[in-house]
Amino acid sequence: MAKADSARFLQDLHELRRIGAFKTGVHRPTYSPQDMESRRWLMQRMEEVGLEASIDGIGNVFGRHKGAGPHLLVGSHIESQNEAGWLDGALGVVAGLALARAGLPVDVCAFADEEGHFEGGFLGSRSIIGELSDEEIDRSRNRTDGTPLRDALKAAGLEGLPRMRIDPARYRGFFEMHIEQGTQLERTGLRIGVVSGIVAIWQWRLLVEGQQDHAGGTTMAERRDAGLTAVRLLAAIDAEFPRFCGERSTWTTGRIALEPGAPSIIPGRADVLFQFRDVSMDRLREMEAGLRRLVQESNRRERCETTLISVAKATPALCDEGMMRALSAAAEALAPGAWQVMPSGAGHDAQYLAKVMPAAMLFVPSIGGVSHHWAEDTKEEDLALGIEVLVEGAARFLAGSN
Amino acid sequence: MAKADSARFLQDLHELRRIGAFKTGVHRPTYSPQDMESRRWLMQRMEEVGLEASIDGIGNVFGRHKGAGPHLLVGSHIESQNEAGWLDGALGVVAGLALARAGLPVDVCAFADEEGHFEGGFLGSRSIIGELSDEEIDRSRNRTDGTPLRDALKAAGLEGLPRMRIDPARYRGFFEMHIEQGTQLERTGLRIGVVSGIVAIWQWRLLVEGQQDHAGGTTMAERRDAGLTAVRLLAAIDAEFPRFCGERSTWTTGRIALEPGAPSIIPGRADVLFQFRDVSMDRLREMEAGLRRLVQESNRRERCETTLISVAKATPALCDEGMMRALSAAAEALAPGAWQVMPSGAGHDAQYLAKVMPAAMLFVPSIGGVSHHWAEDTKEEDLALGIEVLVEGAARFLAGSN
Repeated sequence: MAKADSARFLQDLHELRRIGAFKTGVHRPTYSPQDMESRRWLMQRMEEVGLEASIDGIGNVFGRHKGAGPHLLVGSHIESQNEAGWLDGALGVVAGLALARAGLPVDVCAFADEEGHFEGGFLGSRSIIGELSDEEIDRSRNRTDGTPLRDALKAAGLEGLPRMRIDPARYRGFFEMHIEQGTQLERTGLRIGVVSGIVAIWQWRLLVEGQQDHAGGTTMAERRDAGLTAVRLLAAIDAEFPRFCGERSTWTTGRIALEPGAPSIIPGRADVLFQFRDVSMDRLREMEAGLRRLVQESNRRERCETTLISVAKATPALCDEGMMRALSAAAEALAPGAWQVMPSGAGHDAQYLAKVMPAAMLFVPSIGGVSHHWAEDTKEEDLALGIEVLVEGAARFLAGSN
Repeated sequence: MAKADSARFLQDLHELRRIGAFKTGVHRPTYSPQDMESRRWLMQRMEEVGLEASIDGIGNVFGRHKGAGPHLLVGSHIESQNEAGWLDGALGVVAGLALARAGLPVDVCAFADEEGHFEGGFLGSRSIIGELSDEEIDRSRNRTDGTPLRDALKAAGLEGLPRMRIDPARYRGFFEMHIEQGTQLERTGLRIGVVSGIVAIWQWRLLVEGQQDHAGGTTMAERRDAGLTAVRLLAAIDAEFPRFCGERSTWTTGRIALEPGAPSIIPGRADVLFQFRDVSMDRLREMEAGLRRLVQESNRRERCETTLISVAKATPALCDEGMMRALSAAAEALAPGAWQVMPSGAGHDAQYLAKVMPAAMLFVPSIGGVSHHWAEDTKEEDLALGIEVLVEGAARFLAGSN
């Protein structure tokens, strides 16, 4: 059976870690010199393991297996957040090399800009499944400094290169190994997460209209304080959501902005960003229904009117059951009782690949749940176990797949 | 007895309205050319009514009665907020001219920068009672564009002029006529407000410390959401304050800032500006005690800790009872049943004058409660009644004062 060379896997990870090194992490923003250096490094490693390496017009690095199928696609992203961790993304890409080295018939890919340095997000995985238009590339700019994406692609030497499209029929499935970026494995003392699906984020905006007025000259009885209506609605959401949410649903108010926001002025307007997440469409619909009821009740009782605006509704990406069974069997064989099935609360390239082929993800624990920070880390033995489980699981899946 | 020439009073007001006119209001920021033009206009009117006019080093315009006392001091401010109303401040200054014209022994003053264009606030009234140091003037800058106050004074031709100090012993009291800037007179169909006192603002800051984290990757059970703790505490304050507040207390949350304030990040910190106001020190102390109890209860129950910070505690300025009796008698004589005693929810120069002499304020209604806006207005008949009541009240006070 296929065997993972975990020592070589760790060596590859540490080698990649040196490109764009920042404290114990890396600084490799998309299309930066460090990022392009890491992509060139990857292409060399791909050639070394016998894959045909190329880079496309959006920066996707692809290593194509030269032999017969059925094939698997394996990958993640290789750029990083600013001054962030060495494993986020890199883990899944280097895992692809390890699967190739183990003799499995895999294509390996590093999808460009999963981290969203440029507007649009998930540019590489969307492009490779045919969901990124040239017009969108023309419009996109760097979120931090406004550099047009076209300029960045040109500076990176990618101008004029065609963008590749995968043929889903070539693959039995897509595997992505990733750090958990949360603390659930660590808290429960487990070492492997077999991902059930990638949650969808339903993003909302609550706009409350009141009456701006003088904080001293306006009695409590006559004021229409938009901030107060917002506060009471959010408190009600906090109290009521547990009644109809799912076991692992999350809901979060990330921003509250009162206008004008001055200490002596009654807010005439409140602008709230609220979201919830779940891996089940039914749950998402129930949470939406619950949210609408709470807003309606607020409008019935409060002096200020709240308008509920849907900003975005993603679709949950469920992982393939067959791939999950294979990973679970591998996990139980290699780390009995030290694994669990769990959703991914964060977005990944896998959620786009899942639109065109069966997909699955494998999590390893994050120390302290830290991610998007240079202190991000995972124990070496958990990294090693992870690649062993992935190789075993991928092999079982190929062997058993019908 | 003294008689108010209300027609002349209205004429003066409309003449002043033309200086720095903006739509139906005025734009006369402190020390601007329009503001300085209005100060020169005022000095000419003062001379015309037989007062000895001068301007001091902070821009206070003073008209000194040349005859024997006992004297009254009458005044307000003559600059405006940006693109704001024609009556806010101007009313009380022109009222001083009307009292002089009616033959009352009054000094008239326009106190500079009551509107707080420059840091520090109430520069003129504080200066004239000896509560403004040269060091504070050196430090002060324009809140909008950062211009140092010293530069503005120089550009206005005031550099080098000494700053005047009043001698409280010269006066029986200080009268300030002002628009209400609220809707309480209008709502109850009344025409005169005899002010009981000027509320003190006790300004607080609530700082909540939680744990910034990923909105998807962090379960509801493990998160420490500073925004949620803030929301629940503010909802509790809203529910509990009526138990121990005064009849006319106000409390207001003007600003809520969540950090980092991004849609997909659990807030690690919340920064809230909360204030309450009352004219009674006892009430203010009870509200503070209540607020502290609510914060303590929050800290006992919530997962995030809240720190309560006192930003400022002003002292209520109570109006003089004798002056109030005189105004009330005048109001009842001239507008029977159409007046009430009421506090001022906003700050005025009178709160500083009240520190050194008996002080009183008279309110006229504001249409729609609008102020700090060019649409600010009051019916002509209410302006006329107001000056008649003020002249009658001031005369009664001088006649009856012991």
